[in-house]
Amino acid sequence: MTLIRFAPIPASLPATVPFVGPETLQRQLGQGFAARLGANENGFGPSPKAVKAMQDEAANSWQYGDPTSHDLIGALAAYHGVSAENIVVGEGIDGLLGLLVRLLIAPGDAVATSEGAYPTFNYHVTGYGGVLHKVPYRDDAEDPQALVELAQRTGARLVYLANPDNPMGSWHNGGAILRMLDRLPPESLLVLDEAYAEFAPDDAIPVIAADDPRVIRMRTFSKAYGLAGARIGYAIGHPDLIAGFDRIRNHFGVNRIAQAGALAALADRDWLAHVQREVIKSRARIAGIAQQNGMTALPSATNFVAVDTGRDGVFAADLVKALQGQGVFVRMPGVAPQNRCIRISCAPESKMAILDARLPKALDTLR
Amino acid sequence: MTLIRFAPIPASLPATVPFVGPETLQRQLGQGFAARLGANENGFGPSPKAVKAMQDEAANSWQYGDPTSHDLIGALAAYHGVSAENIVVGEGIDGLLGLLVRLLIAPGDAVATSEGAYPTFNYHVTGYGGVLHKVPYRDDAEDPQALVELAQRTGARLVYLANPDNPMGSWHNGGAILRMLDRLPPESLLVLDEAYAEFAPDDAIPVIAADDPRVIRMRTFSKAYGLAGARIGYAIGHPDLIAGFDRIRNHFGVNRIAQAGALAALADRDWLAHVQREVIKSRARIAGIAQQNGMTALPSATNFVAVDTGRDGVFAADLVKALQGQGVFVRMPGVAPQNRCIRISCAPESKMAILDARLPKALDTLR
Repeated sequence: MTLIRFAPIPASLPATVPFVGPETLQRQLGQGFAARLGANENGFGPSPKAVKAMQDEAANSWQYGDPTSHDLIGALAAYHGVSAENIVVGEGIDGLLGLLVRLLIAPGDAVATSEGAYPTFNYHVTGYGGVLHKVPYRDDAEDPQALVELAQRTGARLVYLANPDNPMGSWHNGGAILRMLDRLPPESLLVLDEAYAEFAPDDAIPVIAADDPRVIRMRTFSKAYGLAGARIGYAIGHPDLIAGFDRIRNHFGVNRIAQAGALAALADRDWLAHVQREVIKSRARIAGIAQQNGMTALPSATNFVAVDTGRDGVFAADLVKALQGQGVFVRMPGVAPQNRCIRISCAPESKMAILDARLPKALDTLR
Repeated sequence: MTLIRFAPIPASLPATVPFVGPETLQRQLGQGFAARLGANENGFGPSPKAVKAMQDEAANSWQYGDPTSHDLIGALAAYHGVSAENIVVGEGIDGLLGLLVRLLIAPGDAVATSEGAYPTFNYHVTGYGGVLHKVPYRDDAEDPQALVELAQRTGARLVYLANPDNPMGSWHNGGAILRMLDRLPPESLLVLDEAYAEFAPDDAIPVIAADDPRVIRMRTFSKAYGLAGARIGYAIGHPDLIAGFDRIRNHFGVNRIAQAGALAALADRDWLAHVQREVIKSRARIAGIAQQNGMTALPSATNFVAVDTGRDGVFAADLVKALQGQGVFVRMPGVAPQNRCIRISCAPESKMAILDARLPKALDTLR
C-alpha cells in the first residue's frame, strides 16, 4: 500500500524497465565486462572530430544548449535535402518515441507493432494508456503486410516498423516500405525506426517525400555515429507533425555537448565510411566465430548479428548468461522463435578476439 | 487545417514555448550577446574537475550512460544523508517536473502555483491536461499561506513553490516551509523547487525527512554547479514516489558525460564555495550598478538579482529590449507588479563591467 496517489495510468503501470543496463549486470556479477557487445553500441567510437568538439564544448556547459538546435537542424536539413521544419531533434529515438506517442495516442487508442520488436516503443505506448496489438515476425523479419492488415483491423493510430530490424538485423527493401505506406489506413501513421539505416544497403532506405503525412522517420546519432551516451537523435516528418513536438517537448532538454558532437559527427563523412567498413568486417568475423562454434549468423543490415544457436530460447538464455559470466555482455530476442538466437554487437577486433576465445568456454559450461 | 490528428490534449495545446533562448534572440538581432545574463546560468562555470571529467568521458560516448545513475545517486545519497531510494536523477529539473506532473496529474486535476512563478512547470501541467490555479505574489515573494488556502479550496494534487524564488530571488525561511507542509490538505503534494538552494542562507532550507510523503524536493546541477547545458538534476522524496518515476521515465535518457560531470562537480566542494562567494560579490555589484542608474536591487538568495526599475512593466520590457540591443541578454518577470523589475544573472566581473557600461546607454535610448 503506497502513500502516494498516482494518476490512473501511472498507477496501473508495472515497475519494470525496458532494458537492464550492463552496469547493473556488472554489479550483480561482481565483475566488469571484458567485451560490451549487448547494446548495439558502436565500439568503433565516435569521430575523433566529434570527441574533440565535445571536449571543447565541456567548459561551456554552464550555458543551456540552444533549445531550437538551430545549427544542427540546419545541417541535417541540408544533409537530407529537406527543410528545417521537417526535422525535430530530441534526446535520442527513445525520447522522440515517447513524445510521438504522447502526441498521437489517447488512452485506449490502438497501436500496431510486432511481437518481439523494440520494447521501449511498447513501454511508451503502455505508459500513455495506448493498447498494443501485435503480429508475429515472418522469416525472422517484421512483416509489413501483416502490420498493414493489423492496422486495418484495429484502426491503429501508430504502426511501428524498424527497418533494418532490431533485434534480428533483417531488413526490407525500400519498395516494400512504400507499398506498406500505400496500403495503410488513413488514420495510421507509420513510425519508421531507421536507427540502423547507415549500416543498411542503399536500396533498403525508401525515398519518401519529407512532407508525406503518412510516416515519421526516426534517426539517431547513437549507432553509426557512435554517440549513444550523448543522447541525441532526430525525426523527419510532415511540418505539422514536427511542429507538434514543440507543444510538449522539454525545450531545453537536449544537452549542449551532444549538439556540438552531433554537428561534428555529421560533418565527418570519412569517419562514418570507416565505421561502415569496419562493421561489415565485424559482421563477417561474428559469422565466422558462430560457425566455428556450430551456430549460424543471420544476415544483418545493422551493427549487430543475430546468431542462431540451433536450439531453443532456454538454451539461448543460458548461453547469454554463460557469456556474461565469461565477461562478454550480449543480449537476445525476447520471443519465440527469434529467441533461439543471441544478439552480438559489432566491435573492434580486440573485442572480437575476446568473444572468439570465450564463446567456446561459455558453451562448455552448458554441456 | 492540419493533416495530423493529434490526441485530444496535445491537439488543444498552443504552439508556444516557455522561454525563447538567447541563441534565437541573437539570430533575430543579427549580433551576439557580449554579456549573457538572462537565463540564470552560472558564468563562473563548472568546477575545472567537472570539465576534465566530462572531457575524459567524451571518447566513451559510444556507450549509453548507466540508466540507474548508480554512482551519482550513491554520492548524492551520501551527501544529503538519505537513502538511494529517496533519489531520482533526471534530465534537469525541467525533465523531472514533466515526469512528476505525468505521474500525479490526470486530465482535469487541480494544480496550485503562483501568478508569475516558473512557466515551465505550468507548461507541463497544461501539457498533461491539468488545471492551473494561481495566487498572486505577496511582497515580491511566493505566498505559502495563500498557496495552502488555494490548495484547500481547489483540492490541488500538486502545489508548486520555489524557494528561493525565481524570478524574484526572494526566499522564505525553512520554518515557513514546514508550517506550509503541516497545513497542506492530505491530497496535495508540495513540489519544492530548490534549484537555487546552494545560493540561499542555511536557514532558508528546511530540514525535512527524506521519507516525508508530503513533499518532493527538486535540485539541479544547472545553477550552483554550473552544468545547465549538461542537463542533469535530481529529486528527493518518499521511496514510493521516487520508484514511480521508473514506470515512466526515459531510462537511458541521462547522458553519460553529464553523469561524469555531476559526480565530479558534487565532489568539488571548494569550487562550490568559490562560486558561492563570487555570487555574493556579484549580487552586490549588480546592486551597485542598479543604484548608479537610479534603480533598486531587491534582496536575493539566488545567483540573479531582480532590479526594480521604479517604473512599470512596459518600461521594464523596453529596457530588456534596449539592453539586448546593447548586447546584454537579460529577462524579466512576466506579471505585474513584479514586471516592474528586470532580472540580471550574476557573472564574472568582465561581464559586470559590460553591464555597467551599457545599462546607462540602454536607459538613454528610452529617454
